[in-house]
Amino acid sequence: MIDKIDFAKQGGLVPVIVQEEGSNEILMLAYMNEESLQKTIDTKLATYYSRSRNELWLKGETSGHYQHVVHMYLDCDYDTILLVVKQDGVACHTGEKSCFFHKVL
Amino acid sequence: MIDKIDFAKQGGLVPVIVQEEGSNEILMLAYMNEESLQKTIDTKLATYYSRSRNELWLKGETSGHYQHVVHMYLDCDYDTILLVVKQDGVACHTGEKSCFFHKVL
Repeated sequence: MIDKIDFAKQGGLVPVIVQEEGSNEILMLAYMNEESLQKTIDTKLATYYSRSRNELWLKGETSGHYQHVVHMYLDCDYDTILLVVKQDGVACHTGEKSCFFHKVL
Repeated sequence: MIDKIDFAKQGGLVPVIVQEEGSNEILMLAYMNEESLQKTIDTKLATYYSRSRNELWLKGETSGHYQHVVHMYLDCDYDTILLVVKQDGVACHTGEKSCFFHKVL
């Protein structure tokens, strides 16, 4: 099914919503290219593409805060990924559990 | 706080994760430009920017499936929006409640 993702149309990257298993809390949003998606499926460890460093990014490689993939879904038009994970430690580099801690409304 | 979003850096659009209040189910991912974000805050009805039609998109305007904004968050680096909503009807144009119904893993 992942071959239905048109990476080229999206500049090589698709957004990935990362949700915690059980609580359904949203932890972060990241991006995958085709290679990081395949690595994630093969290893069951969330692997993204870092837009700032322009390289593959195994989440947790330096922090120890790995994300263990429990489920993966694609949306109706195959241009967004939803990853349901078990989070080691916290998701955000600031030390917060979730990256979404700035409340607007 | 929304003035911290660097729309220009992101090609004018930021991704918006849409989550159902209560269940925490993820309904869809869409995009906002600065104008649609302001409309959403002013009206409390989710308004996006349609990348396919290149125009503002008041969700529910044709289907009746409006999304009433309950909360809005920004992530740690101010480049993703999380919208918590009460969904009228269903979120997906296919008739599914959530757009994420293609199971990969």
